Amino acid sequence: MHKTLTALAVLAAAPLGAEDKPAAPLAPSEIVAAAPKADWSAIAATDLLVMDLAPDAKGKPRRVVIQLMPPPFSQGWVGNIRKLAAARFWDGLSVNRVQDNYVVQWGDADGDDKVKARKLPAGLVTVPESEYVTSIVAAPVGATPKTKPALANPQIFDIYVSQDGSDLLRGAGTSGFSMGWPLALLPVNPRKDNEDSDTDVTGRQVIASWPVHCYGMVGVGRNLSPDTGSGAELYTVIGHAPRHLDRNIAVVGRVIEGIEHLSSLPRGTEALGFYKAAKERTKIRSARMGNEVSGLPAYEFLSTESESFARYADARANRRDAFFIRPAGGADVCNIPVPVRRVK
Amino acid sequence: MHKTLTALAVLAAAPLGAEDKPAAPLAPSEIVAAAPKADWSAIAATDLLVMDLAPDAKGKPRRVVIQLMPPPFSQGWVGNIRKLAAARFWDGLSVNRVQDNYVVQWGDADGDDKVKARKLPAGLVTVPESEYVTSIVAAPVGATPKTKPALANPQIFDIYVSQDGSDLLRGAGTSGFSMGWPLALLPVNPRKDNEDSDTDVTGRQVIASWPVHCYGMVGVGRNLSPDTGSGAELYTVIGHAPRHLDRNIAVVGRVIEGIEHLSSLPRGTEALGFYKAAKERTKIRSARMGNEVSGLPAYEFLSTESESFARYADARANRRDAFFIRPAGGADVCNIPVPVRRVK
Repeated sequence: MHKTLTALAVLAAAPLGAEDKPAAPLAPSEIVAAAPKADWSAIAATDLLVMDLAPDAKGKPRRVVIQLMPPPFSQGWVGNIRKLAAARFWDGLSVNRVQDNYVVQWGDADGDDKVKARKLPAGLVTVPESEYVTSIVAAPVGATPKTKPALANPQIFDIYVSQDGSDLLRGAGTSGFSMGWPLALLPVNPRKDNEDSDTDVTGRQVIASWPVHCYGMVGVGRNLSPDTGSGAELYTVIGHAPRHLDRNIAVVGRVIEGIEHLSSLPRGTEALGFYKAAKERTKIRSARMGNEVSGLPAYEFLSTESESFARYADARANRRDAFFIRPAGGADVCNIPVPVRRVK
Repeated sequence: MHKTLTALAVLAAAPLGAEDKPAAPLAPSEIVAAAPKADWSAIAATDLLVMDLAPDAKGKPRRVVIQLMPPPFSQGWVGNIRKLAAARFWDGLSVNRVQDNYVVQWGDADGDDKVKARKLPAGLVTVPESEYVTSIVAAPVGATPKTKPALANPQIFDIYVSQDGSDLLRGAGTSGFSMGWPLALLPVNPRKDNEDSDTDVTGRQVIASWPVHCYGMVGVGRNLSPDTGSGAELYTVIGHAPRHLDRNIAVVGRVIEGIEHLSSLPRGTEALGFYKAAKERTKIRSARMGNEVSGLPAYEFLSTESESFARYADARANRRDAFFIRPAGGADVCNIPVPVRRVK
């Protein structure tokens, strides 16, 4: 499996799109600004969860817009979240936990109290732990990956992606991007007859994949295993990527606008950043699916399969714009945030 | 150099202290709590910069305590910072920039205005860019590293640590910890006569090293190269580690207490997170070296050369406490924050 690691490391380091690199070194933001309209993908309003917090001390509105994960990832929990929003579950509940360099969490502060807990809507499913990881089949090796999910460049050597916690070399994987999302990608050997193969008998790669805990990603709070959480209790990352949570909690989406309304909240002073007094909590006025919110802007993300994204990722890994004197030569998956914008 | 990469990857993945692993899996925080007193190292008050912001809206004091980098790292800038504190340079200045998932920056908001700029004290040195990286000599290979700086476990494969941006395999390096700090560690071949050697003729490893941009690390704002900044303009990281800044800006310390007073400030709405109006800025009441502050608690950090730290780092990379169902098998250097506490 040594060969596998080497191949992946080379991929991680290879300059992307070097053949048609622009003459003047552009900043990542300039590459994004120059991306043609065709490189942007619309986000359906039906895939947005719009959470309006109570206005701040100056009366300013605080809206947080969350994009939910697309299939095939975390769909059991995503379905629950749609039902919870339809049932107005979060209306009048609150942000209860703000832990510095970690997470902001919201939901029912009385959720563990059998008497006071808000009733969950009917029809929520219990999702098994096996759903933290999804098996995907990539295009045949050597073929142009036209089928979704295509695995966009770059594929990044990732210390958090391994088959077995005790040996990074065995089944070492990478992270990368597909369908607009940062994903862990771990080749699986599907052939019992040939342990050196990383393709199935038809030449397709089988890859275990899971969405990763980067800044702004949204996950599902849970109790101890085997509980996997319903989706009623959600959190978002407000610090350095807590990648140790990958494959341990469901990732269901990401904040695409308004994260500053969560990340700048006062930190809770109790254990794990919970607020001590109820009055410290921030009220949730409402949480609705995007198609229920009138006047909501349309959003789009830079397609991770586009040439613009490959250039952007390369520029994030190798800053050559005026401020920088030495490009890093690499970037971890969470240091390449997928650009999202309002449609003009 | 292929061999080097393999060796480093194995080091990164090897379970630390597996021989004497405790029977019950402890959480990282429990390992830290159980560390014997001898495993803690005192931080001299003379190495602390204590910045008191104006009280918050409720009149609560806001103190930020920064530990400065020890020799041999960034000492030109650290010396300047000592002089700036002695001259009361920051008193009455302000926090001027808060960019979400990036940095909080403070100093003279009129610093670029030749008329209004506050005068810098005499005696500040101009530090060359070469000082972003420091050469250190490690113990002979195979010897117990008694000499400082010893390189504590774990040594972590690090995508940001390479000799040359275009090829991770050439001179691929790791990150790790020494003297209480997270550092990049890049073996340098000191022998022109043997390009496969990674030791000098006496068997010592020569390593290029630099402090890395993790959450809470403090760096020196600068203008375009060849400017390296004086130390008058400082920032701290409040988001995912912006490792692309490594070797491009001087890292001079880290916030060891009170970072929430910076990370929870309202985000600036101008480009790069600068505040639009002067009234949005947060005033700095005073900034003093720790030995000038009466009643300051004593602080200590968990020695990164201690057995307790090795256990803690292993537990951060392989969470086995009750909440976790699957250990990651690795952690990046910024996901292993060095424990710091007040001395009881």
